[in-house]
Amino acid sequence: MNETAFIERLRALATHPAARGLADDCAVLELGGETLILTHDLMAEGIHFVPGADMADVAWKLVATNLSDLAAKGAEPLGVLLGFMLGPDEAHFLEGLEEVLGHYGVPLLGGDTSSGGPPRSFGLTAIGRATHTPVPGRSGAVPGDAVYVTGPLGAAMTGYEALRDSSGEDSTHYRRPLARLPEGQALAPHVSAMMDISDGLLLDAARMARASGVTMALEAAAVPIATAEARRQDALRWGDDYELLFTAPADSALPVRTHRIGLVERAGSAPLLLDGVPLGEADRLGYEHR
Amino acid sequence: MNETAFIERLRALATHPAARGLADDCAVLELGGETLILTHDLMAEGIHFVPGADMADVAWKLVATNLSDLAAKGAEPLGVLLGFMLGPDEAHFLEGLEEVLGHYGVPLLGGDTSSGGPPRSFGLTAIGRATHTPVPGRSGAVPGDAVYVTGPLGAAMTGYEALRDSSGEDSTHYRRPLARLPEGQALAPHVSAMMDISDGLLLDAARMARASGVTMALEAAAVPIATAEARRQDALRWGDDYELLFTAPADSALPVRTHRIGLVERAGSAPLLLDGVPLGEADRLGYEHR
Repeated sequence: MNETAFIERLRALATHPAARGLADDCAVLELGGETLILTHDLMAEGIHFVPGADMADVAWKLVATNLSDLAAKGAEPLGVLLGFMLGPDEAHFLEGLEEVLGHYGVPLLGGDTSSGGPPRSFGLTAIGRATHTPVPGRSGAVPGDAVYVTGPLGAAMTGYEALRDSSGEDSTHYRRPLARLPEGQALAPHVSAMMDISDGLLLDAARMARASGVTMALEAAAVPIATAEARRQDALRWGDDYELLFTAPADSALPVRTHRIGLVERAGSAPLLLDGVPLGEADRLGYEHR
Repeated sequence: MNETAFIERLRALATHPAARGLADDCAVLELGGETLILTHDLMAEGIHFVPGADMADVAWKLVATNLSDLAAKGAEPLGVLLGFMLGPDEAHFLEGLEEVLGHYGVPLLGGDTSSGGPPRSFGLTAIGRATHTPVPGRSGAVPGDAVYVTGPLGAAMTGYEALRDSSGEDSTHYRRPLARLPEGQALAPHVSAMMDISDGLLLDAARMARASGVTMALEAAAVPIATAEARRQDALRWGDDYELLFTAPADSALPVRTHRIGLVERAGSAPLLLDGVPLGEADRLGYEHR
């Protein structure tokens, strides 16, 4: 069985209404008058971080990327559980973990440690409660909605390059992404669909368009970028910025500063139009994690 | 920093009242009039399963051992999230996953997949709701209580040996442990302390005794075993049976068939007395996972 087939079969196994889409989205579970949001991410050495990476940054990213999934649901985090593979640089991991949990005021609730590796891998489960129902998903965008992002893209890209090239430029945005929790909570009552941009704006917008059964018409020039103009096309395809991508009725008064980057149209031949040019999964839209 | 120091610092970071003890126990979280029980386990190739193990068994064990943690809390499982490292034998993993989820009627709610390894590792988070509060913990045993187990020990040991030696004997109890969910739910209102036996009766009883600030006086001959009498001492130290160990007032009428194996006494010089002989962590009591 190839990997795509495996993931499809795993998704087929996740038939509970709470399972909105394995590996794509959070689980949404009604319980006792509350709506729980659950997400789990795996980070593997050599895949999600390079051997020798500062483990404080790895810890930060592990927590922040899961909290970003909660942010896209408008959820308030309740805590995290950590799966930690013991090994070198544990003191730095703890430092980063303490910093990120302190930054977000989120408690460590439990977890497990084990020897294993190299390569090592780490898992994190984040649990939160919805602050607004219905909980935003990927599939709610409708023709006529406007498309928005919460902030500029490309800062993680330049941060990654600074680190790779030891250029001395600031790499913070790559190493220490921020989860847009306040923005997600403020926006949840206003959006028709919302997700975080982890794998690149174009790829994630195409996923939202597919899930919603629409086409998204984006204007490249309208997308705010945090890099040189010459890198605009790269910034649209680079992930790791963790800004929120969402759709809302075009006349909505939104409670936070956002950037309107396009319009939702009826489904056409491709999930995306970028400046009128159809783009689909065959085009290089972003970063495909495996 | 050595590994013990790391785990201690990680535990010190888990100061939220819901975090009952990292890597030891489940998180217990009050929310919306319900009490959530959360647990996460990591299984690493070469540590928790041998390279070449049947991945259907690995999937079964990954789910069953986490459900066993919920059983010890008297919890009803609501679902699981899976962290899966892609690789060989995925079809078998799916088969085992489907079997174990079907057996317990527990839904797959979400998770993440990634490439990585070898060695591969898998994470599972199980979430449940308490059926009884206060939720049983490890620290509630009091002098005068009796000590019980729900069933015989040693079947996983003989199963492991059958597999290792290709003896053709039945290895089911090792490969496919059962989570005592009905027993845990029935017992929760009656127990003063409860946990599952994952690392060996003596080791887990010593942990419960330390957590409760008592000494447990066990009688080796009273412990039910599922192996030859000559292996009794091994059966007391072998893990993976996932029976429940609990304490309850000595005059309790218990709703399920159990086996009384000893008495709780005031804390003495060692956490355990086995047939009157003091045993502590310096003795080989069971299997120390890392």
